[in-house]
Amino acid sequence: MTLNIYLSGEIHTDWRDQITAAAADLDVTFNSPVTDHDASDDCGVAIMGAEDKKFWHDNKGANLNAIRTRHGIQNADIVVVRFGDKYKQWNAAFDAGYAAALGKSLIVMHGPDHQHPLKEVDAAALAVVETPQQVVDILRYVEFGTLP
Amino acid sequence: MTLNIYLSGEIHTDWRDQITAAAADLDVTFNSPVTDHDASDDCGVAIMGAEDKKFWHDNKGANLNAIRTRHGIQNADIVVVRFGDKYKQWNAAFDAGYAAALGKSLIVMHGPDHQHPLKEVDAAALAVVETPQQVVDILRYVEFGTLP
Amino acid sequence: MTLNIYLSGEIHTDWRDQITAAAADLDVTFNSPVTDHDASDDCGVAIMGAEDKKFWHDNKGANLNAIRTRHGIQNADIVVVRFGDKYKQWNAAFDAGYAAALGKSLIVMHGPDHQHPLKEVDAAALAVVETPQQVVDILRYVEFGTLP
Amino acid sequence: MTLNIYLSGEIHTDWRDQITAAAADLDVTFNSPVTDHDASDDCGVAIMGAEDKKFWHDNKGANLNAIRTRHGIQNADIVVVRFGDKYKQWNAAFDAGYAAALGKSLIVMHGPDHQHPLKEVDAAALAVVETPQQVVDILRYVEFGTLP
Amino acid sequence: MTLNIYLSGEIHTDWRDQITAAAADLDVTFNSPVTDHDASDDCGVAIMGAEDKKFWHDNKGANLNAIRTRHGIQNADIVVVRFGDKYKQWNAAFDAGYAAALGKSLIVMHGPDHQHPLKEVDAAALAVVETPQQVVDILRYVEFGTLP
Amino acid sequence: MTLNIYLSGEIHTDWRDQITAAAADLDVTFNSPVTDHDASDDCGVAIMGAEDKKFWHDNKGANLNAIRTRHGIQNADIVVVRFGDKYKQWNAAFDAGYAAALGKSLIVMHGPDHQHPLKEVDAAALAVVETPQQVVDILRYVEFGTLP
Amino acid sequence: MTLNIYLSGEIHTDWRDQITAAAADLDVTFNSPVTDHDASDDCGVAIMGAEDKKFWHDNKGANLNAIRTRHGIQNADIVVVRFGDKYKQWNAAFDAGYAAALGKSLIVMHGPDHQHPLKEVDAAALAVVETPQQVVDILRYVEFGTLP
Amino acid sequence: MTLNIYLSGEIHTDWRDQITAAAADLDVTFNSPVTDHDASDDCGVAIMGAEDKKFWHDNKGANLNAIRTRHGIQNADIVVVRFGDKYKQWNAAFDAGYAAALGKSLIVMHGPDHQHPLKEVDAAALAVVETPQQVVDILRYVEFGTLP
Repeated sequence: MTLNIYLSGEIHTDWRDQITAAAADLDVTFNSPVTDHDASDDCGVAIMGAEDKKFWHDNKGANLNAIRTRHGIQNADIVVVRFGDKYKQWNAAFDAGYAAALGKSLIVMHGPDHQHPLKEVDAAALAVVETPQQVVDILRYVEFGTLP
Repeated sequence: MTLNIYLSGEIHTDWRDQITAAAADLDVTFNSPVTDHDASDDCGVAIMGAEDKKFWHDNKGANLNAIRTRHGIQNADIVVVRFGDKYKQWNAAFDAGYAAALGKSLIVMHGPDHQHPLKEVDAAALAVVETPQQVVDILRYVEFGTLP
Repeated sequence: MTLNIYLSGEIHTDWRDQITAAAADLDVTFNSPVTDHDASDDCGVAIMGAEDKKFWHDNKGANLNAIRTRHGIQNADIVVVRFGDKYKQWNAAFDAGYAAALGKSLIVMHGPDHQHPLKEVDAAALAVVETPQQVVDILRYVEFGTLP
Repeated sequence: MTLNIYLSGEIHTDWRDQITAAAADLDVTFNSPVTDHDASDDCGVAIMGAEDKKFWHDNKGANLNAIRTRHGIQNADIVVVRFGDKYKQWNAAFDAGYAAALGKSLIVMHGPDHQHPLKEVDAAALAVVETPQQVVDILRYVEFGTLP
Repeated sequence: MTLNIYLSGEIHTDWRDQITAAAADLDVTFNSPVTDHDASDDCGVAIMGAEDKKFWHDNKGANLNAIRTRHGIQNADIVVVRFGDKYKQWNAAFDAGYAAALGKSLIVMHGPDHQHPLKEVDAAALAVVETPQQVVDILRYVEFGTLP
Repeated sequence: MTLNIYLSGEIHTDWRDQITAAAADLDVTFNSPVTDHDASDDCGVAIMGAEDKKFWHDNKGANLNAIRTRHGIQNADIVVVRFGDKYKQWNAAFDAGYAAALGKSLIVMHGPDHQHPLKEVDAAALAVVETPQQVVDILRYVEFGTLP
Repeated sequence: MTLNIYLSGEIHTDWRDQITAAAADLDVTFNSPVTDHDASDDCGVAIMGAEDKKFWHDNKGANLNAIRTRHGIQNADIVVVRFGDKYKQWNAAFDAGYAAALGKSLIVMHGPDHQHPLKEVDAAALAVVETPQQVVDILRYVEFGTLP
Repeated sequence: MTLNIYLSGEIHTDWRDQITAAAADLDVTFNSPVTDHDASDDCGVAIMGAEDKKFWHDNKGANLNAIRTRHGIQNADIVVVRFGDKYKQWNAAFDAGYAAALGKSLIVMHGPDHQHPLKEVDAAALAVVETPQQVVDILRYVEFGTLP
């Protein structure tokens, strides 16, 4: 049983690397958005030409990134969405809603501070965790039925 | 042509009332989440019994509210999502992602301050506006082909 | 907002009548399986001819009842499944699984004795209740946003 | 023609092993729920933290198990559901309903005692059998067109 | 509960009239193909111009009739397909396959002589009957739960 | 049988009016894009603010018009697409492809000059005609089974 | 580009072998129903026990065969349906309708005698041919763009 | 992450070769329509027999080509549609609409002269470019997150 996992959300800490490393023995594939913040912001104008207005600069980039993120979510068995400590992170919540509407198994990761404002997102999830290790524990249990 | 509109997002200002009033001559129906903040937070435990933990208190309420919000989005032709000035509003972004994945026509309303963090949500929309009047102008154009 | 409700499960008590009566002021429609136990068991052979084997007697009836139950579930916004105190009630659990796979909002009603064996069914539900009154409280909240 | 088979239901006898062994020469893959009863019951709290209430203890576990069972059913060509002699087994009937709603080919296995209460489940199946050997006979016929 | 019924198949006897008359007290709507044999054969060329080849004469007509038959099947809750004593009736079997693939409730009506060659069609049906009265008995049972 | 018809394509002649007038006795509803050329071109900037670049001026308008056209196509039973004598009319071909992918019954109307370049569009249609009267003849036949 | 082909219909001549042999150089896979007539008729009772009534004997077999045929059609890119000179062949027409409803590319093969009664089936097809060689010519053209 | 790309549209320049060559280091597969103009026009009659009328000559060919083009679009993650300088190219716009309705990621390539008449097609795209190199830049960014 190969599981395809999409790792959405916060891009400023190494949580994806922690999960990938700890899951090295599992039969899983990981996909994620482009995590290079500058490339992600500027990809649209870098390839398709500059814009005077910030709105269209961002629009071009966001649509280009959508090619990758939608592919990742649509082909995933499990979508993990992490909310970090900073920023609005509305794209993370958007991805969670997108995944939920497609019937994907959703795992949400966040600290206790965000519990109340994330209650709708958490309620749509099959698991709510705080750490990368818990994500890997879940993947290992789903694959092999073994507990930590 | 009757259009079913779902008005998602911010619940602390009267934007829904403004839209509904200004659209009184249109062939539209409006649905929205429960906008009574306290009722929305406490509905789960009020009906199904108290919980010691805030997480389950919120989980019960969020799932109950999901009965209404999913019905509203799934039956909508157009989903309008407003982001206000305050709070995390992750449920608004979640609704936008949910609507986008279902292929609904999405209109996003927010002020210029939120432009950059909402770029992925805006890019998934067919229209991005700032005021309730613009939403009604769009609905009137879609219905009758007339411009303001 | 008209809500279509399908009332599945136990047919030996008057819980459907209680819900219907208490919801008389709501904008809802109710559908349910045929609740005449003998008619439900014998409908197939009564219309399409007798069978020697109990298996085919039951098969004819179950397929005929499926015309009604699938129509009811497929057209429902909310599926309520009640598990009573007696019998195997595998058809109730089957209906719950059928409704869950179609993405219907699921409300499960049962007493505390059945909590553990129904844990998978409960986990697929947006609300788990014990009484008909709680179902009506939920419907009223979903419709009007008012709490009991 | 590779067939993906999901083996749902009773976990206290070795029927899955019997099927897997007897089907060793077929081009099939088998998936199943976690069949370690204790792990299955406790997985949620073991990974995501203890709960005081049995309901939430079970809810966490059931949702975690749903990641695996839904993946198994959604990716299956054929879903085999076995009902044993003991327990309520509502999750087995739930899986059968879930598979039926997705249009999966359903094979139901049970003894003659359960014929009447399983009539709705049986009627949704393409085959109703009593033994693991019959399941393998069906798989071999579907693959190679050969009869026992 | 309004049931939409599509009456497919044989067009040379008055079975549709019999059903419609006997179902006058039910909350049902009936649709059917064009049953004027000559109009059905010639509609394409009558509206869109003559063809030298019989193949294209028929192709134009069949595609035009498909506008009505597909609409009828797609909007039906129940599809009744009758096989008469004469002709190839491949369009009836085609409609049955089309309805089955869409998950429609299928009722097949035919005499005992056709039992063996129709076994695959019958197996896809929820009811197999011989007379229009049996169809109405089924519709009445599905609507009201009453037996003849 | 009410038929919902979407009239796509060329907006510079009165073909829609001809169809609507000639179909006055039929049980049909008609929808169409906004046919005021200037309003259609400028709607985006008129409501959401001016753009320096023609590309974004057009992008805003096209997305706004998409709210109406997608609603029209998605809710149609039959999509009629007319290609006139002038302009590129790529939006007409786009609508035809969109309708074909959704499985809508497609009627294409154009003069003989366009036969070869429209061969792929015609091949996806259930009827290819030259005049508004032929469209109405088809609608009348589909509704009543009567030929002109 | 690997193409999955399902070869449905007549089982009394070697047309499948002709296609398979002539397509040996193509990147295609072929699936088909069980073509051993006796095994196909008796598979149900051979595995699941005898029936007194011919109807249930056939029902058991037809449902078992449906596991294979539905898998074959659902996983096919192209469904080829051949109508031979003899028998009712309603299962072939049923398969054609089933494939059409799923949006599969349909190729129908039959002699000129069957043209008129197969007009609805032919009209749903993307190609109508008379010989196995024509099927292979089509597959080769689809794969490589080369004509015979 | 393997990306399946379908290259639709103009067949008279070597833009497909340029993309394929420049993307040699990427994990992508490319499919396209038959680009031999004569074979594409005549395939239907070459395999299935001559037609007197140009309409049916073209109809046979267009339906045959549809087997390949629909397979290509349906199995694509990304659909690139190029509009060249000449011809009506309605099949390109049809493919774009078809891909949009299926929710495919759409990239449109054309020169500035076509901007206004392609505004509806462009608005449905996630990227609008002018050169093959820009397409490859996008694919490389989607795969590896690197910018040119």
